[in-house]
Amino acid sequence: MTTTMPAGVAAARDLVSPAIAGWLERLSPEVRVVAAYHLGFVDADGAPTGDRPGGKALRPALALLSARAAGAPPERGVAAAAAVEFVHNFSLLHDDIMDGDTERRHRPTAWTVFGVGAAILAGDALLCLAQDILLADQAPQGVWAARCLSAAVHRLIAGQGADLAFERRDNVTLDECLQMAGDKTAALMACACSIGAIGVGAPAELAMGLAGFGAHAGLAFQLTDDLLGIWGAPEVTGKPVRADLRARKKSLPVVAALTGGTPAGQELAEILARPDALSEEDLRHAAELVEEAGGRAWAESEADSQLAAATTCLNETQMPDDVRGEFAAIAGFITVRQS
Amino acid sequence: MTTTMPAGVAAARDLVSPAIAGWLERLSPEVRVVAAYHLGFVDADGAPTGDRPGGKALRPALALLSARAAGAPPERGVAAAAAVEFVHNFSLLHDDIMDGDTERRHRPTAWTVFGVGAAILAGDALLCLAQDILLADQAPQGVWAARCLSAAVHRLIAGQGADLAFERRDNVTLDECLQMAGDKTAALMACACSIGAIGVGAPAELAMGLAGFGAHAGLAFQLTDDLLGIWGAPEVTGKPVRADLRARKKSLPVVAALTGGTPAGQELAEILARPDALSEEDLRHAAELVEEAGGRAWAESEADSQLAAATTCLNETQMPDDVRGEFAAIAGFITVRQS
Repeated sequence: MTTTMPAGVAAARDLVSPAIAGWLERLSPEVRVVAAYHLGFVDADGAPTGDRPGGKALRPALALLSARAAGAPPERGVAAAAAVEFVHNFSLLHDDIMDGDTERRHRPTAWTVFGVGAAILAGDALLCLAQDILLADQAPQGVWAARCLSAAVHRLIAGQGADLAFERRDNVTLDECLQMAGDKTAALMACACSIGAIGVGAPAELAMGLAGFGAHAGLAFQLTDDLLGIWGAPEVTGKPVRADLRARKKSLPVVAALTGGTPAGQELAEILARPDALSEEDLRHAAELVEEAGGRAWAESEADSQLAAATTCLNETQMPDDVRGEFAAIAGFITVRQS
Repeated sequence: MTTTMPAGVAAARDLVSPAIAGWLERLSPEVRVVAAYHLGFVDADGAPTGDRPGGKALRPALALLSARAAGAPPERGVAAAAAVEFVHNFSLLHDDIMDGDTERRHRPTAWTVFGVGAAILAGDALLCLAQDILLADQAPQGVWAARCLSAAVHRLIAGQGADLAFERRDNVTLDECLQMAGDKTAALMACACSIGAIGVGAPAELAMGLAGFGAHAGLAFQLTDDLLGIWGAPEVTGKPVRADLRARKKSLPVVAALTGGTPAGQELAEILARPDALSEEDLRHAAELVEEAGGRAWAESEADSQLAAATTCLNETQMPDDVRGEFAAIAGFITVRQS
């Protein structure tokens, strides 16, 4: 595993950002400023930040690799990469509203700056742009890619729907939680890893091998993200400390702790069931209880297993060695547990 | 003009509803129940209402006519009709949240029943399904139809974005307001009137003639809707009386009144600028002022002009006479001012 971002990720951002910026131009001014703010192109007043866009551009990097896995130059994966990135950001814009999250990528979330309505619309517009990009290609592969993306969007929506429903339930099983994470995170990762190949007409075996890699790597990533949501440092995660516990999210380590049948899990359930806001001391104690109940160890072990499964998929799928190496580097990078 | 719903509208609903219900089955249970509730298939507990789905199914009826205008049987327009209806309902689900509307089609709005998050997701899912339906068709016409629909969705989003921005401005011009209505309402109507023809590979002149008809009829419809939003009876509109004034919406008659340079318009502006909620007496007086300032007469006259322009488009476009007659009947029906 590596703690440095693989070079390909920054290069992918440089290749895909102009396409993203170009498609944003098609939006009306009121909607564009919100989308551009969310993506990190402009500040809250609409003035260019001069920075590179926010976010790690992991999914675009995976989509470009996916085209290269099929023997195409990365340029031929740009449309797919931009489409996946738009879908990812559509979901972030909407999820931040639903989850009441006020900070993302070290900045106030779009809905807190522009209002809920404007943020809903900006998300809608990005979802629509994602399909536009793929359908702008006259070849039938564009439609295949659009269908692949749409299937991922449906799973993403299903996962977020389950996540919201979990908030009102106190009997969520670990299987349900894994299914939710598979839908909410892994499906779009699987799409990112295969859509570039699909978009250049790769054979089904390659697309499926890449999708399998992405699905496992996506689950490993979500497990890691959930661990960071409790034990991650704010300067690393860009979110307040113990944000997921504060929001009483039924994240994977928490559900593992709650369903493990331990006294610590029982005590955790009682704390999370309190009607009032949790104090910093409560949150610190809750994090200890997740660990004591085995939630942390389970999530770490499960993340390792999923990463191993991803690696197996990768090694069993035919592609150029340098592409395989770059896929592996990204999978390693997104599952590093910097806490 | 007619006050009775043309027979074709109910027939269209019967033809398209099974397709809509079938596609809804693809959604996850948590998301599906919200969409099905919004569409009138089930009640808040998920139990089938036994009723026909809510709403007038105007856009599906227009889409089926559009296929028939190109000489195809209505069955070949079902996918386009369902897609347009999904987009319409995607926008209603999201708009109701943004506008804080609590009642639609004589029922509580989805976000008040299931929460904002669930209603956002249900809207997202319907937008995604709309594209799925069109891309399920292998023929290139499916992609043309998908692009036509996507262009309409972008204008719809632009229109709603402008509408939200207008709420924070006190200098909205009538031209801006007409542009907003053209985007928010007329664009999807224009799409509904042409997408069926596009989906069966009709020549561009037919598609453009139908789109022109739909755009003018759509504006006439919005003007009528805005008039009903002030003077419509709740049992007709399904919304509280004077709902648009209560929400201080910058609807077309209101903006016409505000920008007409009359003392009544000035007094109206002062009332709408008050920080507190408006009393029933305030609202009654505000409605009188819109009328006194000429807003009502302008909107009625503009609705008539737009309907006339729609009729001209219709008469100048080649299509079977019975289809033309049915288009004209729907245009007449949606612009009746039952107050």
